Amino acid sequence: MKATFLIHCPDQTGIISTVTSFIQENGGNIIYLDQHVDKEAGVFFMRLESDFADSQNSETNLKDQFDKRIARTYKMEWSVHFGDEKPRMALFVSKYNHCLYDLLSRYYSGELKVEIPFIVSNHDDLKYIGTQFDIPFYHIPVTKDNKARAETEQLQLLKDHSVDFIVLARYMQIISSTLIEEFPNKIINIHHSFLPAFAGAKPYHAAFDRGVKIIGATSHYVTEELDAGPIIEQDTARVSHVHKVHDFVDKGRDLEKIVLSRAVQLHVNRKTMVYNNKTVIFS
Amino acid sequence: MKATFLIHCPDQTGIISTVTSFIQENGGNIIYLDQHVDKEAGVFFMRLESDFADSQNSETNLKDQFDKRIARTYKMEWSVHFGDEKPRMALFVSKYNHCLYDLLSRYYSGELKVEIPFIVSNHDDLKYIGTQFDIPFYHIPVTKDNKARAETEQLQLLKDHSVDFIVLARYMQIISSTLIEEFPNKIINIHHSFLPAFAGAKPYHAAFDRGVKIIGATSHYVTEELDAGPIIEQDTARVSHVHKVHDFVDKGRDLEKIVLSRAVQLHVNRKTMVYNNKTVIFS
Amino acid sequence: MKATFLIHCPDQTGIISTVTSFIQENGGNIIYLDQHVDKEAGVFFMRLESDFADSQNSETNLKDQFDKRIARTYKMEWSVHFGDEKPRMALFVSKYNHCLYDLLSRYYSGELKVEIPFIVSNHDDLKYIGTQFDIPFYHIPVTKDNKARAETEQLQLLKDHSVDFIVLARYMQIISSTLIEEFPNKIINIHHSFLPAFAGAKPYHAAFDRGVKIIGATSHYVTEELDAGPIIEQDTARVSHVHKVHDFVDKGRDLEKIVLSRAVQLHVNRKTMVYNNKTVIFS
Amino acid sequence: MKATFLIHCPDQTGIISTVTSFIQENGGNIIYLDQHVDKEAGVFFMRLESDFADSQNSETNLKDQFDKRIARTYKMEWSVHFGDEKPRMALFVSKYNHCLYDLLSRYYSGELKVEIPFIVSNHDDLKYIGTQFDIPFYHIPVTKDNKARAETEQLQLLKDHSVDFIVLARYMQIISSTLIEEFPNKIINIHHSFLPAFAGAKPYHAAFDRGVKIIGATSHYVTEELDAGPIIEQDTARVSHVHKVHDFVDKGRDLEKIVLSRAVQLHVNRKTMVYNNKTVIFS
Repeated sequence: MKATFLIHCPDQTGIISTVTSFIQENGGNIIYLDQHVDKEAGVFFMRLESDFADSQNSETNLKDQFDKRIARTYKMEWSVHFGDEKPRMALFVSKYNHCLYDLLSRYYSGELKVEIPFIVSNHDDLKYIGTQFDIPFYHIPVTKDNKARAETEQLQLLKDHSVDFIVLARYMQIISSTLIEEFPNKIINIHHSFLPAFAGAKPYHAAFDRGVKIIGATSHYVTEELDAGPIIEQDTARVSHVHKVHDFVDKGRDLEKIVLSRAVQLHVNRKTMVYNNKTVIFS
Repeated sequence: MKATFLIHCPDQTGIISTVTSFIQENGGNIIYLDQHVDKEAGVFFMRLESDFADSQNSETNLKDQFDKRIARTYKMEWSVHFGDEKPRMALFVSKYNHCLYDLLSRYYSGELKVEIPFIVSNHDDLKYIGTQFDIPFYHIPVTKDNKARAETEQLQLLKDHSVDFIVLARYMQIISSTLIEEFPNKIINIHHSFLPAFAGAKPYHAAFDRGVKIIGATSHYVTEELDAGPIIEQDTARVSHVHKVHDFVDKGRDLEKIVLSRAVQLHVNRKTMVYNNKTVIFS
Repeated sequence: MKATFLIHCPDQTGIISTVTSFIQENGGNIIYLDQHVDKEAGVFFMRLESDFADSQNSETNLKDQFDKRIARTYKMEWSVHFGDEKPRMALFVSKYNHCLYDLLSRYYSGELKVEIPFIVSNHDDLKYIGTQFDIPFYHIPVTKDNKARAETEQLQLLKDHSVDFIVLARYMQIISSTLIEEFPNKIINIHHSFLPAFAGAKPYHAAFDRGVKIIGATSHYVTEELDAGPIIEQDTARVSHVHKVHDFVDKGRDLEKIVLSRAVQLHVNRKTMVYNNKTVIFS
Repeated sequence: MKATFLIHCPDQTGIISTVTSFIQENGGNIIYLDQHVDKEAGVFFMRLESDFADSQNSETNLKDQFDKRIARTYKMEWSVHFGDEKPRMALFVSKYNHCLYDLLSRYYSGELKVEIPFIVSNHDDLKYIGTQFDIPFYHIPVTKDNKARAETEQLQLLKDHSVDFIVLARYMQIISSTLIEEFPNKIINIHHSFLPAFAGAKPYHAAFDRGVKIIGATSHYVTEELDAGPIIEQDTARVSHVHKVHDFVDKGRDLEKIVLSRAVQLHVNRKTMVYNNKTVIFS
């Protein structure tokens, strides 16, 4: 039985030895440990993977013991994930298909270990991709007038399908606070600029107008403030005066899909932790 | 005799054939040609290097002929540079030494083909580097009260030494409009962020607070608006949650010196042209 | 009518002015010109895009005139491509799907402007992708014994479908000289290392064993010598001691698909020229 | 008192908890821990930084205790470094100055925390840099005939100055086994290619001839086999058909100096560990 612990708590001495001793005493073998201390904030972070001899310890018992003997003492916020559970990921899209195609091909080839119960879109342009990959596609149009009702429908879908997290694969609508509160640090967006430069609409046009020599893409968790959530992953590519806006868009597509897929993989592999609007990304 | 032409003018048909025919008729052999058309602005840009049989044509005659027969017809703004003239570069510094050291070692080893008549600084911390590299070092303190007088002194120095262009090698004072007007698109700054993100003071602190996964450096020509001039060169480096502000500073130093030296080389080799607050960078 | 000229010939003075004058005299407007001189080899290369007023000149006439008046004089090897012809691209695959998925999604979304008459594979594992994207999939098994016959079948397919060029999207068989001679500089391969390091089989294993800190991918035209053809595009990614061979493979997949797609786009847009087992890649 | 432990030993369960408990019991606070397991080799690696209340424990006592209670049990190869000892670094150079200038400016500005007792060279071309930076410069010519005697002189210098490690800052002579045996994994070289491609002489020429689109630099520990030692750091830069060999050299200089300085910093900060001709590089 493989168990992955994610922990953060006020920093103090002795946490590592206490936790690692606990694992050992319970018959676990540590196969990976990464820790980080944010000294300014006084917070300790740890990710630990271990193998347990199955018979010795039930999942429930291990959780109880850890909670009683360790977590409460150190005031930890923590979680543990057993085995190879596949999180359930909902895909929100609009009209651009490159991120959707990229994620679905990774899913189909087994590279991305998730369940994808459905794709939802405010347009029906990409319905054919749902068909190609045999994934239910829901078309929920969003207008000024029906926005609240559309969200209610979205929320219902998410609940009906027990969705764990949401990926906005170039979904061009602003996510409301209702949805954000239901999925805190569980909505992953891809923005087509190296944030915080060019937040908001039309970043490639803005980058072109500024005459930058580098464009970027940023994947982040969605928070109330637009394009200001905790950054998971970024990457950049060189451009020059010969590139027009549509060349930025072309080059950007590859950045967007690669950066988004890396962020999704980090989330799925439970390698991200959020604190003070920043991420700790474990190795 | 080597001649490098830099040209921009309203776009129209026939410019390339007219210019290249002119070169050929005057006994020149084209060894490099790069052109660019900004279609939105309707502007044509060209850089052309050619070899002339020395005897046939004097520099003055070639200039006159080009002006009369070509430049006026096409309403060109143009310049031509002969042979291996070394431009005269003034260095402005404050307390950081990495960009200064980097530029001086490139100069000393012959990699950077300029004359450096002097270094000027608002502090005397780096005077020892002037001594190490045998370059006159002027200490002109700048305070709120004496700013105007300090600039007069700087301008006098620049004139006395027939300076062609200025490099702000982490000079921590804002350049006044007087100096900018005297050296339009001839003052090169290095800013320690991937502009337009984190313009202004303390960009590494701002980048750290935002939790970016990539930091950058930007070299640009100085204009009236702070950190908003035409970008010559940018580059980026990856950071993570383990890096504190001082790690950003450490990593940033290497970015800054490499990006600045690339921009200076492009300027010295007459590979930059400015239009509409952007640069055309010839290959 | 848009015309793209690709030219190479022995270097001499006057080529640019002669060609550009020809274009102008025939009512063409040059919208792009890039040239390169390989001084050691004494070869001149040029790529030129121009717009012609349709009525004035037929394609055939333009070709004839260019051949008579220019190409013969300068001993040019040249080609001209009119309008938006879509080249016909055959896909060869084996068992890995990431490059295939990537190319097909670019094709489906209109990003990659080609016709894809068929996919051919020595295995039937990826037949389902042909079905997903509605592209004929031919399964031609290749064994030691039937290799010659298999190639005959491949060649027949290529001729029947008037294929212009071939992309080996992780096709794991060595291409025979027969096929290479039929498609000189028209077979694009992706190799999963930064060539010339780790040519041949199992490059990720070799890279892991050597303890490199950077892995790469290389797209090149296929020639007789294995993994030694003219390089079109390369890119790299960082790895560290924490990455095992399967992590190299994971990271490599993204490199491979991006590098291959860039190479294919360069070929499709007629931006590549081969000389002396190297490529000139126009901007 | 700050103590940095570097440990490797056969992998088994309980190492982390045992070591971290030891630190805690001795009044130490762990401020950094990074571990790695090479499963194939069955080896456990750890780097641990901790702060000790000075009074409680002497350096010698801590070492003895660790040795007796931990290291012997787990068959560890280990070292501990206290406080801010500055290692003593000898610089070997030939005629190229860029790496030398780069390291010396980092040293002079306090960025590189070492002592530099001397520079030694087989030529006297760079003697002036020793003078500029006030560092003793020894000229020991190396010819076929005097090679053995030259090495004896070098060794004597290294001993006289209690040198801890050697940096070959573009030193163009092959290091003999005598020197390598005296300084195992303590001689850092910079090679101007992305090894294992283009090992040996004239890598830029070889890269140019092959038509690569990327060049690189590699810093590694020197071993008996030329350019085949454990790689510490690598980086790459893009080139194109427009770049001639001398452009490769120009671009390469920046790669070389940045890659070498990163490797030296990693070594100085005791973040490198060598095993099976590979490095573990701690974060």
